[in-house]
Amino acid sequence: MKESGRKAGAVSPCAACKLLRRRCAQDCVFAPYFPADEPHKFASVHKVFGASNVNKMLQELAEHQRRDAVSSMVYEANARVRDPVYGCVGAISSLQKQIDSLQTQLALAQAEVVHMRMRQLSTSSSPGAMDMAVDQAAMGESLWSC
Amino acid sequence: MKESGRKAGAVSPCAACKLLRRRCAQDCVFAPYFPADEPHKFASVHKVFGASNVNKMLQELAEHQRRDAVSSMVYEANARVRDPVYGCVGAISSLQKQIDSLQTQLALAQAEVVHMRMRQLSTSSSPGAMDMAVDQAAMGESLWSC
Repeated sequence: MKESGRKAGAVSPCAACKLLRRRCAQDCVFAPYFPADEPHKFASVHKVFGASNVNKMLQELAEHQRRDAVSSMVYEANARVRDPVYGCVGAISSLQKQIDSLQTQLALAQAEVVHMRMRQLSTSSSPGAMDMAVDQAAMGESLWSC
Repeated sequence: MKESGRKAGAVSPCAACKLLRRRCAQDCVFAPYFPADEPHKFASVHKVFGASNVNKMLQELAEHQRRDAVSSMVYEANARVRDPVYGCVGAISSLQKQIDSLQTQLALAQAEVVHMRMRQLSTSSSPGAMDMAVDQAAMGESLWSC
């Protein structure tokens, strides 16, 4: 139904053409990804990347890649509007810190498991108990890291 | 020394003015962040954001925020050049997956610690042993999540 609206030209321009005050052609590169009822999506990418750059970037991609490209550009543009200094890179930095913290916590928990296994086995009197503890610890680590 | 070069105008334009083939004014907004010997930095942000948008974004920031803003824009632009479909958002998605995996591994390791503590205490005959195990487990979790 939207397609037939666009065919009629100015009757129902996409959000991009509306903002750029131009006729929305039948083969408009923006129309499939920037519907008229979501004007904020194009407003963000226009502000951050510029309409001409978004156009160029989309033209350089195969059609089946364009929807994902638009989604990632909208995400990136919104991040830059929210945080004009760091944009998306602020999120990357914060996720990286979270990973560092989780890796530390995981190493501590794994060390605790190994320590408890060693203590358990050192109280048992079976021969080769320490070798078994090391084997079990190695097995545990390989299970965790899958 | 670079400043005096720029004062002479066209003698040593910054990378941005060189690419845009314009005179590099003494108060050029790009010059402090896009030195002539790193032309790729401006080439990337120009391709992805457009010179005019970069100019506007820098003008809207306080001077002490501009260096970080340029760094994050260069990072973002390079990511988009390398991966025109997902750009920076590809990195965010991959970090998020890494976090999910680490959280699963951590939960398994913490469960293993709790399980071992319970088993250890169930073999002991001291009164209130199970309560102590639960207390220790809770303490452990609060230590890990700090």
